[in-house]
Amino acid sequence: MNSQNNLEYSKYSEHAETSETIRILKEFRSQDIPYNRVLSSMCTTPHPLALKAHEMFIETNLGDPGIFQGTKKLEEKLIGMIGELLHGSEVAGYICSGGTEANIQGIRAGRNKMRDKIKDSRNPNIVIPKSAHFSFEKIGDILGVEVRRAKLDEEYKVDVSEVEKLMDENTVCLVGIAGTTELGQIDPIVELSKLAEENCVELHVDAAFGGLVIPFMNNPYPFDFQNDGVSSITIDPHKMGMATIPSGGILFRNESYLRALEVETPYLTSRTQFTLTGTRPGTGVASAFAVLHGLGFDGMKKIVMECLKNTRLLTEEMISLGFEPVIDPIMNVVSFKTEKAEKIRNELMKRRWIISSIKEPRAIRFVIMPHVTEEVIKEFLSEFRKIINWV
Amino acid sequence: MNSQNNLEYSKYSEHAETSETIRILKEFRSQDIPYNRVLSSMCTTPHPLALKAHEMFIETNLGDPGIFQGTKKLEEKLIGMIGELLHGSEVAGYICSGGTEANIQGIRAGRNKMRDKIKDSRNPNIVIPKSAHFSFEKIGDILGVEVRRAKLDEEYKVDVSEVEKLMDENTVCLVGIAGTTELGQIDPIVELSKLAEENCVELHVDAAFGGLVIPFMNNPYPFDFQNDGVSSITIDPHKMGMATIPSGGILFRNESYLRALEVETPYLTSRTQFTLTGTRPGTGVASAFAVLHGLGFDGMKKIVMECLKNTRLLTEEMISLGFEPVIDPIMNVVSFKTEKAEKIRNELMKRRWIISSIKEPRAIRFVIMPHVTEEVIKEFLSEFRKIINWV
Repeated sequence: MNSQNNLEYSKYSEHAETSETIRILKEFRSQDIPYNRVLSSMCTTPHPLALKAHEMFIETNLGDPGIFQGTKKLEEKLIGMIGELLHGSEVAGYICSGGTEANIQGIRAGRNKMRDKIKDSRNPNIVIPKSAHFSFEKIGDILGVEVRRAKLDEEYKVDVSEVEKLMDENTVCLVGIAGTTELGQIDPIVELSKLAEENCVELHVDAAFGGLVIPFMNNPYPFDFQNDGVSSITIDPHKMGMATIPSGGILFRNESYLRALEVETPYLTSRTQFTLTGTRPGTGVASAFAVLHGLGFDGMKKIVMECLKNTRLLTEEMISLGFEPVIDPIMNVVSFKTEKAEKIRNELMKRRWIISSIKEPRAIRFVIMPHVTEEVIKEFLSEFRKIINWV
Repeated sequence: MNSQNNLEYSKYSEHAETSETIRILKEFRSQDIPYNRVLSSMCTTPHPLALKAHEMFIETNLGDPGIFQGTKKLEEKLIGMIGELLHGSEVAGYICSGGTEANIQGIRAGRNKMRDKIKDSRNPNIVIPKSAHFSFEKIGDILGVEVRRAKLDEEYKVDVSEVEKLMDENTVCLVGIAGTTELGQIDPIVELSKLAEENCVELHVDAAFGGLVIPFMNNPYPFDFQNDGVSSITIDPHKMGMATIPSGGILFRNESYLRALEVETPYLTSRTQFTLTGTRPGTGVASAFAVLHGLGFDGMKKIVMECLKNTRLLTEEMISLGFEPVIDPIMNVVSFKTEKAEKIRNELMKRRWIISSIKEPRAIRFVIMPHVTEEVIKEFLSEFRKIINWV
């Protein structure tokens, strides 16, 4: 890779045991399991355009936007592009470390905006689906917000009447999921949005995974800012956007949410900072932009369609082997009921194949990312068939 | 860069307007100011070894350590190396997004461990120096912790008697800085450690910058785990460790602090997660390891010594121009008193030279990172001399 100015590190090169260092790095790296044996990650091999862009922006630091003025403008352009995809007309936001930071910031903005409107400002709560990502427990601890988990309906969507029951005068925010981690299900965001509006609370949509899947599906479910009650959306380019890690996204309906997050920055080139982190790589912006701009809507749609086709392929094969999907797959996530879920997962892991297991209901879970090609699925199934009879 | 398995993205390449995308990326990137005109950043051009390692680990995700088993082991090795540098015998920790996350996690672990020991568990406070980084305001808001700022002494170190005055029965944590952002000053950590021990509260040391400077200085100040009261230390490889962004570090005295941060992870290859983020790049681990292992203690010391030499060079030149340093520089950070600080900064910025200004006292501030070579300093001074007479 290039570095922008020629440093004088060379004068120290006699001390650098470079070859031994690289040997150790290779040794450790070789112990990682390659992506073409991973059928349960929501991340994937970065797109070649993402890698190229990453290399160009390797030195950049968006924590100091007065220095990295071009990278900052590129981020604004990217946020505009994603905002348009999400039907927002005044969106504001930034590219962050990932879904957890995005969810923290969504809930934190909601908590801060609602602080003076709830009964006991020191005792805020949020109502989230039982299916929400485990990181919301972390967020509850970090932000000092009580997390109330609402029951799901038979399709594993959140039951809106259960959400309503859990709300009280200290509720600051509701959460809906567009693409649940376990099943890829989409919550009834339209109804949640109405409920949020009626009760004057915020609504955060966690579309970390689904945000870059749903818009490219046929007849996409309206999960985004087209619902007036939606305040903020998590959407991660380093998942289905095929960007390099870290590239998470948090978008707000408008700038007022950023104001609720801001602190002053005495010695930087900017005056305030609304991000959670300070130093922040520009690589996530560049790689996400490269993929979305380079492929365009049509290119993204083709990749999503291919993932959905492969998901159907896997599902049919699994059904023919006697497995029943927990729900008919909505997107490229699918889980199959089995009491032996953990045992199957562990046996596969011994053979360096990675799938995951879930507990309610007991099932094995697959995420069919772009790296999970038809060939990978076939190779996996041939190994899978060998073990299911005796596991 | 290489990607580990060959994806079938090529089938979509007819849709990728690659050349136009790359042209746009180049155009934005060219608007950034190159590091050899930046004299106020605590980040720097990554070391060539860091870039090489980064490339090798570009796909890795430490959020799923069961997949990236080798990268996870490399992180443990690196934490062990940094722990040894910081005189810890049982340290535990991880490589994170940067100083803010590290400081959040240090304070959060302290808050959680102290929750049942303070008088009002819903009203915790921390006592930090006035000189602490602005991100502590953010942390106060995020964690719901009251932030009390203690006055400094004449040398801009925190006044320990002022810290003691601000403590009460709801204090969970003290903070000391080893390398303040504005002046590079080191707080009296030895005395703060005694105070923390006497009062059974935690002590977090923010050595984001100084942690990879002080150990390589002659007669290093004992800021680390050799003080029994120090609970946690922030130390960022992407600052003086010349690693790629993001590579922050949070180290705890022992594993019990990780337990205070943990949540369960139902569908990952690990069972619990103590990090703030979920998905987490392995590049920060690899690049930090590459530099520390490749250069070794002696190589790091040479780079630090060179930065200190260049800091003295700049200081002498500035004194000869009639500027007085706020304190004699301790490390490679130096600020000079002037009522015209902001005007000077702005004039330089118009000429695409970046320095920063501080307010108490009014001063212009420099950080002499490895990219700020003798040549860069001379070129800067020739521009600086032109403007100071009429600003």
